[in-house]
Amino acid sequence: MTLKEYLAARIEVVDQALQRWVPAESVEPETIHRAMRYSLFAGGKRIRPILCMAASDVVHPDAPGIEDAAATLEMIHTYSLIHDDLPALDNDDLRRGMATNHKVFGEAMAILAGDSLLTLAFQVLSELSEIGAEQRSRLVLELASASGTVGGMIGGQVHDIEGERMTPTAELLEKIHRAKTGALLRASVRMGGIYAGASAAEMQALTAYGEHAGLAFQIVDDILDMEESSAALGKTAGKDLAQQKITFPAVYGLAESKRMAEEERQKAHAALERFGNHGTRLREIADLIVDRKS
Amino acid sequence: MTLKEYLAARIEVVDQALQRWVPAESVEPETIHRAMRYSLFAGGKRIRPILCMAASDVVHPDAPGIEDAAATLEMIHTYSLIHDDLPALDNDDLRRGMATNHKVFGEAMAILAGDSLLTLAFQVLSELSEIGAEQRSRLVLELASASGTVGGMIGGQVHDIEGERMTPTAELLEKIHRAKTGALLRASVRMGGIYAGASAAEMQALTAYGEHAGLAFQIVDDILDMEESSAALGKTAGKDLAQQKITFPAVYGLAESKRMAEEERQKAHAALERFGNHGTRLREIADLIVDRKS
Repeated sequence: MTLKEYLAARIEVVDQALQRWVPAESVEPETIHRAMRYSLFAGGKRIRPILCMAASDVVHPDAPGIEDAAATLEMIHTYSLIHDDLPALDNDDLRRGMATNHKVFGEAMAILAGDSLLTLAFQVLSELSEIGAEQRSRLVLELASASGTVGGMIGGQVHDIEGERMTPTAELLEKIHRAKTGALLRASVRMGGIYAGASAAEMQALTAYGEHAGLAFQIVDDILDMEESSAALGKTAGKDLAQQKITFPAVYGLAESKRMAEEERQKAHAALERFGNHGTRLREIADLIVDRKS
Repeated sequence: MTLKEYLAARIEVVDQALQRWVPAESVEPETIHRAMRYSLFAGGKRIRPILCMAASDVVHPDAPGIEDAAATLEMIHTYSLIHDDLPALDNDDLRRGMATNHKVFGEAMAILAGDSLLTLAFQVLSELSEIGAEQRSRLVLELASASGTVGGMIGGQVHDIEGERMTPTAELLEKIHRAKTGALLRASVRMGGIYAGASAAEMQALTAYGEHAGLAFQIVDDILDMEESSAALGKTAGKDLAQQKITFPAVYGLAESKRMAEEERQKAHAALERFGNHGTRLREIADLIVDRKS
């Protein structure tokens, strides 16, 4: 199977899992389920669920039900986008080429749709039937910690908001990105390992991979925001600069940022050495993260 | 121990649990932890944690660590208040006699503080060390379901928002309250049972108690909103009427609403019969819910 086929197949099973777990638009109260589904099925690249499944595959190929655990990462990611886009936060009208959730459903429903996806993610983890309760509990802890305030996604978001008024330094940049996007990408890989029953040594290698691939993802994201047009990105480009966000190009310049992304790719590859050929997909995904154009 | 002493002691241990689990204001990023703590320690009556602990006591007196599980209910309740008070939702400036979270910390931080408390609740459940993983997993499921869109708290909130434009009927009223406040109060009692290892028959009795006590709570809440002054309530009174919210007095009138609260009290008491003297505290708490003046 080519990487392209592999990714398409994975996206398909994740989308099916999301379809199963998120109440249908016909279920009362209809509005909130429409709002949740609008953003969940708005053409996301499913990078977090794919990382989760690919990491699981390294340890235990095709572990039954892994797509359900992976889908919870997309719920968390989508909730964070809906809340980030709100007028009180980034005030974005456009996301993936579509009107943002609050532009379509209003602010009240967008706030509640985010809350609902966050809540549903933990419900789904507690209902996973193909693994034991100890693993379910570890998955809840992993996802909650990565989403929380101390070194997690919300913490990074707060640093980011407060960073808009501060001098961009390498330390601040690292702190923001390690938390804001890094923590959930790292958790994506680790949740795959937990689901598949990885050993401590395997978890350590997967964690290192997740950290380097995650950092590469954010560096490339910042570079793309600076280089690409709004049309290609499907969101308002150059916005980081306009909002005085702290980015890798702002701190290190464009050329050095590209070199850093390359270095993270190499480190991500190196972390996979112990897995031999079984690490091929994760290696290819690291390449995809660095070489992507949008 | 009198009921008053019992409640004071319980509030004390719940507050200590919250102090342990919520990062200190000195932990980075400080702002979000200040915002979370501001609303958590704003003088809440801790009715949900108290119900949880009292239910647990019926089955297994003083189960070690029960206050940690109970504290997660207060996190969920507080998150829901912070988000409900936002300008896009109820737009309230005053809560428990204090400025609402977004008035003090701004809308962005209030949204994130709510998200953080919601996330932290599940993290805490996954870290409970005095019970087995199977119980932790059941607690996550119970709390997530009660907080979610289908028959849970968010679903009730959506019905409530949409109900403002609809004719108040008994059916709509029941649907809103069963979900909006009823589900979490019911879950409070059930989580106590799960924590203490209740049998199926015990769970059934506790669930019935939780449903009747929960309905009584909401009826009395609606009556108080209509009767009491803003000063006594610590929030803007008569607001339900101004916003055309569907309430028990609006549908049934004041006298009939009072009779209904009384009936729910009796049913809550009846559900406790199998517990004999062990049910005394829960009986007293049902009385407190119905007889309270604020």
